[in-house]
Amino acid sequence: MNHPFDEALRLQAASSDQPHTSAGTTSAAYWNMVGPYGGITAAVLVQAIHNHPARLGDITLLTVNYASGVAAGAFHITATPVRTNRSTQHWVLSLEQAGPEGSPEVVITATAMTALRRETWDQNDMPMPPVPAPSDLERRVMTGAMEWLNRYDMRFVQGGIPDDWDGGGTHSLTQLWVRDEQPRALDFASLAAMSDVFYPRVWLRRATRVPAGTVSMTIYFHASAGQLADNGANFLLAQAQGQAYRHGFFDQTAQLWAQDGTLLVTSHQLVYFKT
Amino acid sequence: MNHPFDEALRLQAASSDQPHTSAGTTSAAYWNMVGPYGGITAAVLVQAIHNHPARLGDITLLTVNYASGVAAGAFHITATPVRTNRSTQHWVLSLEQAGPEGSPEVVITATAMTALRRETWDQNDMPMPPVPAPSDLERRVMTGAMEWLNRYDMRFVQGGIPDDWDGGGTHSLTQLWVRDEQPRALDFASLAAMSDVFYPRVWLRRATRVPAGTVSMTIYFHASAGQLADNGANFLLAQAQGQAYRHGFFDQTAQLWAQDGTLLVTSHQLVYFKT
Repeated sequence: MNHPFDEALRLQAASSDQPHTSAGTTSAAYWNMVGPYGGITAAVLVQAIHNHPARLGDITLLTVNYASGVAAGAFHITATPVRTNRSTQHWVLSLEQAGPEGSPEVVITATAMTALRRETWDQNDMPMPPVPAPSDLERRVMTGAMEWLNRYDMRFVQGGIPDDWDGGGTHSLTQLWVRDEQPRALDFASLAAMSDVFYPRVWLRRATRVPAGTVSMTIYFHASAGQLADNGANFLLAQAQGQAYRHGFFDQTAQLWAQDGTLLVTSHQLVYFKT
Repeated sequence: MNHPFDEALRLQAASSDQPHTSAGTTSAAYWNMVGPYGGITAAVLVQAIHNHPARLGDITLLTVNYASGVAAGAFHITATPVRTNRSTQHWVLSLEQAGPEGSPEVVITATAMTALRRETWDQNDMPMPPVPAPSDLERRVMTGAMEWLNRYDMRFVQGGIPDDWDGGGTHSLTQLWVRDEQPRALDFASLAAMSDVFYPRVWLRRATRVPAGTVSMTIYFHASAGQLADNGANFLLAQAQGQAYRHGFFDQTAQLWAQDGTLLVTSHQLVYFKT
């Protein structure tokens, strides 16, 4: 049996005369409350770029805008390289589904850049915080919750989902170790998916559960394919922190490190919430 | 005489049967080293959305990808509302210029969301750091440098442009007060422009001047039109911090506060650099 992540990423080329378009189906294994886990949608966009015959280099930058809810069932992704330079390539993407009258509607908009990576001076200005090893922490089991949560092994260092929804929150910092529940070597698509692993910061900050959903996520990939291969199926340390909450939206900054302290990804989200 | 910022933002609707397309010209007043200041390009995209007759609400989220260098002269912007919901609207944008053979080429890709804002619970998890008032700090004068620098009054609190390029950098945190040199009340377009006011983090981190240019900038607008009006032409506190530098790219996180501590914008960039 294939890994559920690879099943979720399966795309079919539309036809040889439409190289930019591919077709897929949402995955029940990564279902969230009323649609797919946002991370799996980001991952399938990475996959669409990766599959494109004209691709130059690896994914370096991805912005995904969740313009509407993705419905269960079929979708089409269009991934078009609109500008190719010597070492970088810029992409415009959309995910469409049939609307109520059968005609295609835009559900997701996205932009991306792939790039040929070269060795340069490097530095980490956001060192991994000192935290206990994953083996010293308990796995958070969330049986009966959203299905996608069962696809990950999560071990919270701090800022776990509140046990008491008493309105007494004081901060919005979460740190957790995360890896695929069924072991799978890290690649760009799974790294994109894990960048969305955090529950809404507003829940933690307020110790209050309110409706919330990601509006936009930007991911900067700092790792090369080789560095991802080095990680294999090991845990990543994932950290997120809210910044501003106002007028029905909040944002978060996030970082994902390999266990050796390599900063693999920095990510940002704008999230809708209801009072 | 009009304010140079308003001159730079002047767009002409292409025609009534092409509501998504408008035409503009680059501004010498905001020239950077080999093209326009990235912030003025972000601002003109905001302006294109603002001008659109079908716009719903105010700009809330903007991602701009600098796919190629903008050349001096004419450009076209296409701003298309691809999905309109009850209180949010998603946009896909591109800026094109005539290429070497005269046919249009994509120079900038962008996505955006506008939204109707409503009062909700609010909180600031990124308080303004304690800093001296702008009146207690010297203005940094940069005569003979890039023209756009003359459009802003900048007063560095810390992390100014290094005086000695001795390779001895130790951090990448910059804080400065900034406002339009010629006073102008803050609006969404000028806030977008100021979100790009930071010189490359890699210069500070290494105390070494290397070629660098923004590849992508994402701006989350946390302020309402009313909060911008409250600010008027006063200084904003702008802060930026690098995170990871590797394989020819680095990223930064940034915040802009009004003087009363209101967090107006959070922003992120991916920047190309050469060793």
